[in-house]
Amino acid sequence: MRYRATLAYDGTAYYGFQRQSAVPTIQAEVEAALERIADAPTLVLGAGRTDTGVHATGQVIAFDLDWQHAPADLVRALNAHLPDDIAVYEVEVAPPDFHPRFDARLRRYAYRIVRSVVRDPLRRLYAWHRTGTLDLAAMQVAADHLPGRHDFSTFGSPPVGENPVRTVFEAAWAAEGDEVTFSIAADAFLYRMVRRLVGTMAQVGQGRMTPDEFHAILATRQPDLAAAPAPACGLTLIEVKYD
Amino acid sequence: MRYRATLAYDGTAYYGFQRQSAVPTIQAEVEAALERIADAPTLVLGAGRTDTGVHATGQVIAFDLDWQHAPADLVRALNAHLPDDIAVYEVEVAPPDFHPRFDARLRRYAYRIVRSVVRDPLRRLYAWHRTGTLDLAAMQVAADHLPGRHDFSTFGSPPVGENPVRTVFEAAWAAEGDEVTFSIAADAFLYRMVRRLVGTMAQVGQGRMTPDEFHAILATRQPDLAAAPAPACGLTLIEVKYD
Repeated sequence: MRYRATLAYDGTAYYGFQRQSAVPTIQAEVEAALERIADAPTLVLGAGRTDTGVHATGQVIAFDLDWQHAPADLVRALNAHLPDDIAVYEVEVAPPDFHPRFDARLRRYAYRIVRSVVRDPLRRLYAWHRTGTLDLAAMQVAADHLPGRHDFSTFGSPPVGENPVRTVFEAAWAAEGDEVTFSIAADAFLYRMVRRLVGTMAQVGQGRMTPDEFHAILATRQPDLAAAPAPACGLTLIEVKYD
Repeated sequence: MRYRATLAYDGTAYYGFQRQSAVPTIQAEVEAALERIADAPTLVLGAGRTDTGVHATGQVIAFDLDWQHAPADLVRALNAHLPDDIAVYEVEVAPPDFHPRFDARLRRYAYRIVRSVVRDPLRRLYAWHRTGTLDLAAMQVAADHLPGRHDFSTFGSPPVGENPVRTVFEAAWAAEGDEVTFSIAADAFLYRMVRRLVGTMAQVGQGRMTPDEFHAILATRQPDLAAAPAPACGLTLIEVKYD
């Protein structure tokens, strides 16, 4: 039986989602938990290959398992075998050909920035600390250029054999207290695309680039015109949607 | 010159505030940072001896330092030498006899609980995860017995030579989303007092003890009637006030 599950994790201690030899990854931890439950190697498919240090509250995974009990019991069994920094929230039966990456219609990420003179030790693992001012209105004008179907080569590279065109559905900055958060939803993202968008919009927020220049560099498809990616710790995969 | 400083830290990696041989503590880290700045050993005094794993956003410390520049420069110098999980927020010149512990008039702690079926990996280091229901109204009725001058022996022990009478100014539960937070202010606290109060009020919230029974055990001054202390990770020292 194929199962679909929603996963949350603190990415701090992991080399991203995707399994790699000799380093801890989210996929390897979930596969190890499933192997203890199934007593057999079990492959885990993921919706988004989050990078080293990137977090998730709504990653979606799929796996095949011979499980005789209710899905809610599988949630409990998995959480009993997973480390503290990974948790499974929901498990449901999925069609046998369900693929969390290929079938996804929408992915949403949030990027969190803390604006303060001194860094906050209690949020250091989950937000980008920035001193200096950020002109949020200018950043939103820049973000308003993102929705729609664009070649995003300026801000990332696609997997081998795929094209760099993606459709952004929403891109919005919001402020609350000393935090600003960027929320972006798209059909899919290029490698490091959200972090490079945030890094470049932060330049807009600092007055080093105008929103029009941001719009212009999107059109150039030249990666060297984008700023360095914002730090991984500020990024969280929020949700993945299916038809 | 004596300086007073406000300190924030993530207590996860430390064996509490107070210096101990051979294990990392907040005091030792700040003293090491000051030693690098002063080029001489420097003693740090703290307002609250937070336990292993307890956090702070408003710990107050004092130290003597020969510093030729502005206090704001000392903030920067200290933060440059402190590890990521400790930060100094404010430094000001204090009277030569200022003592952060003996002169404190009010200390406020917050205790954070996340109520959810599945634990949240992103808050695991900063809150007590609880499944099950918690009757917040009953917990507040219990908390209403705390303000005033009481012998709190049921909930903790005083330092050697001190009496166990403390004056609580405020004790309130508040809910927001899936979190409940207990905020308590007192002139001072006994060892583990907040965590034992929270652990015991959680029993009230689960219906295992009535608010009247909670009131009654406070009067008994018998520590074995209190519940086990709530986990350290949920506790944060929020502020310390002086005349």
